[in-house]
Amino acid sequence: MKNINIGLFGFGCVGQGLYETLNNSKNFAGQIAKICIKNPEKKRKLSADLFTTQKEEIINDPNIDIVVELIDDAEAALDIVVSALQSGKSVVTANKKMVAENLEYLVELQQQTGKAVLYEGAVCGSIPIIRTLEEYFGHEPLNEVKGIFNGSTNYILTKIFEDRLDYPSVLKEAQDLGFAESDPTLDVQGYDPKFKLSILLTHAFGIHVPPSEITNLGIDRLKTADLEYARSNGYTIKLVSQARRIGEKVFGFVIPQFVKPHHKLADIRNEFNAVTLDGEFCDEQLFIGKGAGSLPTGAAVLSDISALSYDYKYEYKKHYNLGKLPFSNQSPVKVYVSYNSPEQVDLQDFESIQEKYFSFDHCYVIGNICLGKLQKDDWRNNKNINVVLTAEDSQTGLGNLCVNDLKDEIDELKKGQKIRERITI
Amino acid sequence: MKNINIGLFGFGCVGQGLYETLNNSKNFAGQIAKICIKNPEKKRKLSADLFTTQKEEIINDPNIDIVVELIDDAEAALDIVVSALQSGKSVVTANKKMVAENLEYLVELQQQTGKAVLYEGAVCGSIPIIRTLEEYFGHEPLNEVKGIFNGSTNYILTKIFEDRLDYPSVLKEAQDLGFAESDPTLDVQGYDPKFKLSILLTHAFGIHVPPSEITNLGIDRLKTADLEYARSNGYTIKLVSQARRIGEKVFGFVIPQFVKPHHKLADIRNEFNAVTLDGEFCDEQLFIGKGAGSLPTGAAVLSDISALSYDYKYEYKKHYNLGKLPFSNQSPVKVYVSYNSPEQVDLQDFESIQEKYFSFDHCYVIGNICLGKLQKDDWRNNKNINVVLTAEDSQTGLGNLCVNDLKDEIDELKKGQKIRERITI
Repeated sequence: MKNINIGLFGFGCVGQGLYETLNNSKNFAGQIAKICIKNPEKKRKLSADLFTTQKEEIINDPNIDIVVELIDDAEAALDIVVSALQSGKSVVTANKKMVAENLEYLVELQQQTGKAVLYEGAVCGSIPIIRTLEEYFGHEPLNEVKGIFNGSTNYILTKIFEDRLDYPSVLKEAQDLGFAESDPTLDVQGYDPKFKLSILLTHAFGIHVPPSEITNLGIDRLKTADLEYARSNGYTIKLVSQARRIGEKVFGFVIPQFVKPHHKLADIRNEFNAVTLDGEFCDEQLFIGKGAGSLPTGAAVLSDISALSYDYKYEYKKHYNLGKLPFSNQSPVKVYVSYNSPEQVDLQDFESIQEKYFSFDHCYVIGNICLGKLQKDDWRNNKNINVVLTAEDSQTGLGNLCVNDLKDEIDELKKGQKIRERITI
Repeated sequence: MKNINIGLFGFGCVGQGLYETLNNSKNFAGQIAKICIKNPEKKRKLSADLFTTQKEEIINDPNIDIVVELIDDAEAALDIVVSALQSGKSVVTANKKMVAENLEYLVELQQQTGKAVLYEGAVCGSIPIIRTLEEYFGHEPLNEVKGIFNGSTNYILTKIFEDRLDYPSVLKEAQDLGFAESDPTLDVQGYDPKFKLSILLTHAFGIHVPPSEITNLGIDRLKTADLEYARSNGYTIKLVSQARRIGEKVFGFVIPQFVKPHHKLADIRNEFNAVTLDGEFCDEQLFIGKGAGSLPTGAAVLSDISALSYDYKYEYKKHYNLGKLPFSNQSPVKVYVSYNSPEQVDLQDFESIQEKYFSFDHCYVIGNICLGKLQKDDWRNNKNINVVLTAEDSQTGLGNLCVNDLKDEIDELKKGQKIRERITI
């Protein structure tokens, strides 16, 4: 194995984790040659001449073999990755937002430059899911990828249910402990797990789906009444990301879900993540590990660096070799929708309703609603409502057509018909 | 990716599974060119000219790129693998006994010939544990590898506890259903999971430990009284394989264990397998999947074939790059030992005893006993006794020295001393 000189961008939590894992790994032949950081004034525990603020000092250094990008800013990260590839260096990154939003472009760039971008650390920290999907399930038709892809929200939900607390107080505690960001939006509204789901869609089903097309609902609207409803039914709630192939379509979304005891995700606690696969050959698979943290993510990054030492690349087998399956939001999902007073939700929006409950300050409806509807502004921005998938794992309605969508379509067609009629008269 | 011509040995359960997965995988470029079988008279669903009984027709065919060995007989399997490597063909095998018993030799042969032997299908069926250990944890110091590595016994134990049945009746049922072999010795006495543990020791800790050095106790001596003891304590029993690094020594054994509810192995049911890892960087990891079966194992074999298409090899990084850790049986484990009458067990064999129970036809002792003692003939062959590890997961005594061993050593030294004294007199 050749000795590897690493040019590192960013020296935050994961960057320092990588440094630690490199130092404590007894059989890795490589070292960090240079670290590019934003703020040269910050006190660091490493020698000052290891640091630079000039990107070019890494990109243009012929002695640096690979670039490891571990900064927060997705735009700047993309810039680094593109520059590195174009100057003939392979890249390891853990920036899920950047990868998810630019994956099609990154795949093209890899083809053009012949260099690799690896990003195991971007999805579920210490769980080797991308490499496993590429290498182990590359030839296997998969039916489902599902799991808990965000450690902060899983920590919050675990505390809520185990310690019988409410959402705001646990969020505060998680922030104090460093388990949640001071601006927790990306986590608690389900954006972070959506980026990961978007990346996994490429490796599991061979399709690129921009995150903007995937429905994400978070845990930030969970009310005490919802928690009581869950507890009285013996459920907990998990923020579940899932993608399923039904016939020749793929559906995918991030929505909190009621979870029964003994469900395979029920015992995934605190900052742990889980990924379940359902394949044609292997049947059910479950992977559990720490989803975040300095060392677990640092170790994932190190495993990518190690793979670059023998010129490993993702082959994107399914993306290149299979017919592209269409991704769709035109399907009903069965949800529990809670709100405070009847006028806040238009029941016409549902495809069908199985249960309704109204009281002085709490209402809920259980029924089928189209995924596409949940993505629309009147639902997305309605802070009064909270949506949780029912505990039925199979989501039997998924894959059916949405009647509301069909009606809209018919209305549109009729309108056009009328316009044509008027024109022809 | 190049098109691959496969020469297959054996067309039993896994061979047919491979054929199925190849046929149903939409993006794999390769086919089975020839199948070598033992019995040409058997009716097969494939065209007769695909089959041969002559090994050389595959080994000497320059159009065949790789050899896939899926026969039962470990000795004949080794012969095939060696011939294939020596004639310049890489090999995929799923024969755990053959691999475990010859791993050091197979590693050497790979070095000599420059060809690869891959054997993901040999360990825990559909769980991609070997590749993960090689690629993902190749640079990470591991503390523990543990799990349920045998589907037949896990199926039997699940039925025993969920349906409140006894061992003989469930074994019979499992045999009728094809979940257990007509000669179940390798499974129920813990040999099969021991072969797998031996293979994982190489990939997790870099050491080759012949299966004969690893203690294996099975589930075939479980008596009704033991099941009652487990049930009354709220335990189930699992056949657990485990290897742990403590200081600079590695311990490993396959012994049934009492398992508390909510333990990470408690919900691994029926033919599912599980592997847990504990690493310095990643902390705890858990992998769950089907441990056996035609398609799951066939898919594992296919993933190895696919890896050969880009000349993948196990690097045995830890084996080559780390100091060899010694494997030891000189440590106490905490066990529940049951038997029928007091004279059947010599309590002096224990390091220490915490509990004793005697009744008319059932006795048990809970205490620490040296692993090496459990391996000795007087314990191994004593059909009256049943040994189960206590539910304490940490096995706090592990890694300590065995007082009995030290006494024996002192006795030996004293004997020598006396002989020397007599000689010198």
